Amino acid sequence: MSKSVLPVNLAEKLSQFSELWSPKTVAVLNDYEVKLVKVKGEFVWHTHEDTDELFLVISGRLTIQLREGDVVLEPGELFVVPRGVEHCPVADEETAILLFEPAGTLNTGDVGGPMTKAAEFLD
Amino acid sequence: MSKSVLPVNLAEKLSQFSELWSPKTVAVLNDYEVKLVKVKGEFVWHTHEDTDELFLVISGRLTIQLREGDVVLEPGELFVVPRGVEHCPVADEETAILLFEPAGTLNTGDVGGPMTKAAEFLD
Repeated sequence: MSKSVLPVNLAEKLSQFSELWSPKTVAVLNDYEVKLVKVKGEFVWHTHEDTDELFLVISGRLTIQLREGDVVLEPGELFVVPRGVEHCPVADEETAILLFEPAGTLNTGDVGGPMTKAAEFLD
Repeated sequence: MSKSVLPVNLAEKLSQFSELWSPKTVAVLNDYEVKLVKVKGEFVWHTHEDTDELFLVISGRLTIQLREGDVVLEPGELFVVPRGVEHCPVADEETAILLFEPAGTLNTGDVGGPMTKAAEFLD
């Protein structure tokens, strides 16, 4: 069987990198991507004007700060930030997240800055 | 805080139904949906001509039969069946799966038949 029909093991992919706030693409579905990212500390407030963004926590604990209040995600919990809604992720401990969003979505959305990272493909 | 900013807990959603092979939509991202489905036994061979389809196993063990060979998914493993690729899921034990695919994607793709179920929204 060819390599292309092996599944993607999320734990194995997460073991391949340690960099924080740097999304890694592990699967492609049409023009969408599944990305893994490790986070700790506070990100930057930003907005994606053109797309919703899905966060699924794999390990750790993620707070997505919204202007209307916080959403706290434990492992096995997901949340979709609607397009146009300003948000700022923060994690007290190192937290692993699965993101689902259109290919080309930038992590910092509209604000840019030093934390901007284009997603890299993880082999 | 309004109900709309509560996260989706996958285990809690899975506890809300027992029907097999009947996808439940638990989140919407743009024109895509996150669905949960419980499966056991063999489904039907089918193809989605217009879309890729993502399977992520939450519990149990899923084999996705392809004409070129089987893909076996354990919990925490995902696989994207490319559009146009005939496949048939099968599970020896009850298995919980997260699906990600465009809204309106039918579970039986091009073949229809008695196992066809439109996804229902799970509140």
